Amino acid sequence: MLKRASAGGDDGYRLTPLVVVELAPDAKEEAIAWLLSKISDSEQNGGAELLVEQLRHGEADREKDNRNVFLVGAERQRLLSGAEDLGLFKEFNDGSMRAFTCANKDNFKDFKGTKVAAAAVAVVGKRKWDLRDGDGFLSMAECQYIVKHELDSLRAKNETHVPGYEKAKLYPGKSIIRRMQSKGILVQVFPLHETEELKRLSFSWYKKVKLSLQPLDDIRHYFGEGMALYFGFLEYFTFALVPMALVGVPYYLFDWEDYDKYVLFAAFNLVWCTVILEAWKRSSATLAYRWGTLSRKKAFEEPRPGFHGVLGFNPVTGREEPLYPNTKRLLRIYLVSLPFVLLCLYLSLYVMMVYFLMEGWALTLYDARPTFWMSVLTFVPSVIYAVVIEVMNLIYRYAAEFLTGWENHRLESSYQNHLVLKVLVFNFFNCFASLFYIAFVMQDMVMLRQSLATLLITSQILNQVMEAFLPYWLQRRRNKKMMRRASKRATLGEKEMPLADQVRLEANMSTYLGTFDDYLELFLLFGYVSLFSCVYPLAAVLVVLNNITEVYSDAFKMCCVFKRPFSDPAANIGVWQLAFEAMSVIAVVTNCALIGMSPQVKSYFPESETQLILWTAAIEHGLLALKFILTFVIPDVPKHIQTKLARLEFESLEALKKKWRALIGSNDLKSHASGLRLRCLRRRRPERLIRTAE
Amino acid sequence: MLKRASAGGDDGYRLTPLVVVELAPDAKEEAIAWLLSKISDSEQNGGAELLVEQLRHGEADREKDNRNVFLVGAERQRLLSGAEDLGLFKEFNDGSMRAFTCANKDNFKDFKGTKVAAAAVAVVGKRKWDLRDGDGFLSMAECQYIVKHELDSLRAKNETHVPGYEKAKLYPGKSIIRRMQSKGILVQVFPLHETEELKRLSFSWYKKVKLSLQPLDDIRHYFGEGMALYFGFLEYFTFALVPMALVGVPYYLFDWEDYDKYVLFAAFNLVWCTVILEAWKRSSATLAYRWGTLSRKKAFEEPRPGFHGVLGFNPVTGREEPLYPNTKRLLRIYLVSLPFVLLCLYLSLYVMMVYFLMEGWALTLYDARPTFWMSVLTFVPSVIYAVVIEVMNLIYRYAAEFLTGWENHRLESSYQNHLVLKVLVFNFFNCFASLFYIAFVMQDMVMLRQSLATLLITSQILNQVMEAFLPYWLQRRRNKKMMRRASKRATLGEKEMPLADQVRLEANMSTYLGTFDDYLELFLLFGYVSLFSCVYPLAAVLVVLNNITEVYSDAFKMCCVFKRPFSDPAANIGVWQLAFEAMSVIAVVTNCALIGMSPQVKSYFPESETQLILWTAAIEHGLLALKFILTFVIPDVPKHIQTKLARLEFESLEALKKKWRALIGSNDLKSHASGLRLRCLRRRRPERLIRTAE
Repeated sequence: MLKRASAGGDDGYRLTPLVVVELAPDAKEEAIAWLLSKISDSEQNGGAELLVEQLRHGEADREKDNRNVFLVGAERQRLLSGAEDLGLFKEFNDGSMRAFTCANKDNFKDFKGTKVAAAAVAVVGKRKWDLRDGDGFLSMAECQYIVKHELDSLRAKNETHVPGYEKAKLYPGKSIIRRMQSKGILVQVFPLHETEELKRLSFSWYKKVKLSLQPLDDIRHYFGEGMALYFGFLEYFTFALVPMALVGVPYYLFDWEDYDKYVLFAAFNLVWCTVILEAWKRSSATLAYRWGTLSRKKAFEEPRPGFHGVLGFNPVTGREEPLYPNTKRLLRIYLVSLPFVLLCLYLSLYVMMVYFLMEGWALTLYDARPTFWMSVLTFVPSVIYAVVIEVMNLIYRYAAEFLTGWENHRLESSYQNHLVLKVLVFNFFNCFASLFYIAFVMQDMVMLRQSLATLLITSQILNQVMEAFLPYWLQRRRNKKMMRRASKRATLGEKEMPLADQVRLEANMSTYLGTFDDYLELFLLFGYVSLFSCVYPLAAVLVVLNNITEVYSDAFKMCCVFKRPFSDPAANIGVWQLAFEAMSVIAVVTNCALIGMSPQVKSYFPESETQLILWTAAIEHGLLALKFILTFVIPDVPKHIQTKLARLEFESLEALKKKWRALIGSNDLKSHASGLRLRCLRRRRPERLIRTAE
Repeated sequence: MLKRASAGGDDGYRLTPLVVVELAPDAKEEAIAWLLSKISDSEQNGGAELLVEQLRHGEADREKDNRNVFLVGAERQRLLSGAEDLGLFKEFNDGSMRAFTCANKDNFKDFKGTKVAAAAVAVVGKRKWDLRDGDGFLSMAECQYIVKHELDSLRAKNETHVPGYEKAKLYPGKSIIRRMQSKGILVQVFPLHETEELKRLSFSWYKKVKLSLQPLDDIRHYFGEGMALYFGFLEYFTFALVPMALVGVPYYLFDWEDYDKYVLFAAFNLVWCTVILEAWKRSSATLAYRWGTLSRKKAFEEPRPGFHGVLGFNPVTGREEPLYPNTKRLLRIYLVSLPFVLLCLYLSLYVMMVYFLMEGWALTLYDARPTFWMSVLTFVPSVIYAVVIEVMNLIYRYAAEFLTGWENHRLESSYQNHLVLKVLVFNFFNCFASLFYIAFVMQDMVMLRQSLATLLITSQILNQVMEAFLPYWLQRRRNKKMMRRASKRATLGEKEMPLADQVRLEANMSTYLGTFDDYLELFLLFGYVSLFSCVYPLAAVLVVLNNITEVYSDAFKMCCVFKRPFSDPAANIGVWQLAFEAMSVIAVVTNCALIGMSPQVKSYFPESETQLILWTAAIEHGLLALKFILTFVIPDVPKHIQTKLARLEFESLEALKKKWRALIGSNDLKSHASGLRLRCLRRRRPERLIRTAE
């Protein structure tokens, strides 16, 4: 796309298209005109100062196409100042990462500065094209992130409703984009793919069969830091599982029926899951430092678009915006959401108990009359249970989203945290409750192993189908359509797809809803491995295999199936780190309990079960304490990066001091001089006197 | 003292004395001269730019007195810029706390600014007295802290040794004060008391019998934030214990022998110790915000005076200073200190076991021949054990200090943390190991109660004697000496003690070694109450009583027994918060175990002890989880203070943005003008040219 843009007006557009804004086909003209003027208006008038242009017709389907599709771009200077406002970090001349400032732009690496061609300011029509400033300095993903931020911060001023839509109420500070989207006037806002870049990326990422690591820097460049961290974590997790898998294979091959040998394996498990999480924190910090998100200071967070409340003045910024009392939110969380979640958990447990009852009943039936149909019947409860679980997950997901929205969090981050927490707890229960029941209430290790294997293999097959084959099939269907068009174009002698067609094609692709589901899947896999893999040592092997295909299928779906997502300058995997750590604590407890229950350990305490339990509890407490001490002792950020961060902070402090002093100096001089200078300084060496008077 | 200073040259000194520097009586003249020149030299020459003057003879003991006592003061402007360098927070005009900057000084509350008397610049001798600027704006404690910081940062440049002392080696960056102190050339550096202020403070603090709270703000004003937080914590802790004590009294009165009724009490205990620690974090944040230390950004920390290493360049500041590889330090910690601590713990356990053996042996002897002398013999093991514990504590303390010094930590804070950790773990073992042994190995609740009562009462009496009566007695002895002098002076018709006498008097007072021992005492008391008070409900009452006298004895010792300590702008109680939290986790485990062992609970599981233990463990895990969730959910800083902090940060960000923009603008102008100006400005008004060139 950038290439397309630099090639000039191939398509006849006066802007480099970054983001597409699609309005409803039947949107009223006045609303469209109002929105467009808001987008392109100057900042003083509450506009975003972006460039906007209507998409022209493609070559096919002229009649069916939605006319109300607009391309949004921005002048380079606007993007640079946006990058400064957002506090984006870029590589400095000395190799460190620093917050970009326009004043200092020439000192940033890869900034092809003003020196080269100071006169290269072309004026096309009324618009000034500023081609000289750092072309390619900001990646397209960054530009799109900036544009998205500017669009999101378009807020109503004095308008009471969207022009032409009486019902689309507005009040000062209300996000315009959000209101128009919720009323269906605006269909979607999405960033455009870069065809050339994407081809290159997908080739190095998943198309060639290779043994090298994923091109994380390229992924970050194209999709942003959040996505790159997900893939980095996926890769890290896979590698971390390899020793586990290697230890597991001989267990599987030689000790298949020897369940009481798993003490060593459980102990290994326990150390492993503590260590890898601590190590991940460090490598995540290293990645985030390299990408400049580690020390990025977030600007003051604006309320999330869905936030509503009574108009008032924000106590922090003093700006007018909706306010919502914290106590009310807390009441909603603790009096409605929390009981609801607990109720759902109870329901989930209840369903599980019904499943075990049904299974027991089916088994008795089979034992009484062991025919073929009866053996089929024994599978029925499991199938029913699996289906019910899926349905419950789905319903719960909607309920959780509704509830979290209703809690009315001011910040997007806090909304996300509460949503993740709700969904996580429920999913954990649904997936693991039955396993815990089998392990600790029924104490049936054979059944535990079978259930685990079934659950793991089923969920993996299901996931692979949902994530790779289904998209692949969809893609092939779409490809056929494309082929038809391409053949049509080939007859016209064109090679590249026209912009209009590309935009319309992408507009029809599915929307990627964020890394939530991908992380959730990894979380559950981590759970299977860390909690119970000592009973079924092949779990780690299966998860490793799954992860390898997961890398490819996720890469494929990001590049070919979904619309490009907006990038997100994340510094870590956020609330998921916490979730994985919580899981590893549960893993310590579970593994200790499994060890305590093993016949091998039991044989050490032949006379007294009480002694055994007390010892198990004591060791478990010791291990938990050790785990917390480890978490405390191992620094989250590697030493060399700490040093770099400290140096940056020190330098900026020193610089600030100097600047302040310079500022004070000149101010003081001015004020002092005003009176004195006139009278006495006209003779000789007058500046001495001023200086000593300070 | 300030009053004395403002009264002018009563004592004939040209400075307001803040800090006293006492050199050895036989210190060589050249070393003294060198140190004094360093202190008063300008910053460019590596000096501290402070004022320094020799103390004159007092009226008594002219011959015995040390002549080498110097008073250090500073010009007000120097103090203000020192306050800015240290990032001290002062109250702004709008009531918020902000980092003081000289540029903005007139906007700070209580700053009697330059407007009042712009011409009040007196020149006395060579020295310029600047009386107009914010007299009383900085408290004396703050001034002393600034002077101390400046003295500490006096570092050698090219000197290879202290003049006159070939053996007192120096290298660039080595703290001069520290080297001279370690070689015995410098005896001590201490801040002066303010007699008037101290009288007022001690009256409102502990002299009048009252029911009001301690004057924390005044304490902070006089002794600094660290001390005030200690007294704040002591007060808070006492109040937090009151409900505990109230619940305990009826238990003691009515259920004296009914040990199995303590389940409820243990449950209460458990909730209580979690809640009060969370609540303290919040009130500590409130105090620290009020005192302006909460958001104070620490300047880059210089190495602690005792730090040594190979000369190199600090990777953060780029300055030349000794470097010491981190790996070497870690090796020392994990290969020497850690095994040593573990060995000591083992030794302590061993001694405990010997004590129990001896006690058992004494009891059998007594049972065999129950005479009076035999009953005395039964006390011998306890006495020996108590003495051995004290001796071990003492030896261990020295060893810990030596080891921590040998670990060679770069920062004072990290040195302190490692020292506290070492001492804490050992003291915890020494105090509680025997109780744990009685409770969980011997399972003898009657003996536990007796031991607890004995330990608690003995240690309290011992403490009160050591902290209140002993100092009081010392004070009385000193007072007699003073009386004699005073009567002499009375005959001479003087009222106030001359400065020289006061300085020499204070120089002979004991040095307060920091809040370490005071916190340690509170920590152990907290341990007795939170761990075992369900067995001996009167413990809380005893601790409350102890704390009340503790407030008075601590206040007395701070005001009358010790030299004034340097203040310390602490924002919280530091590593002690962590220690108390660790204790409260141990308390949860201990209380659960005690509950599980109570006959009352045992009667619920008449047939199976295993069931009982499993239930106890399950509930304990649930409680621990709840505790961690509570710690996570309750915000450490109250909402309204969060808002204020966020507002400050937002404002400073906005202001910075504006300043930067202004700066960029003017820079641009300057560079443009640079060419023009040289040509046309050379004729008239030469000072302009000089100034812009600066």
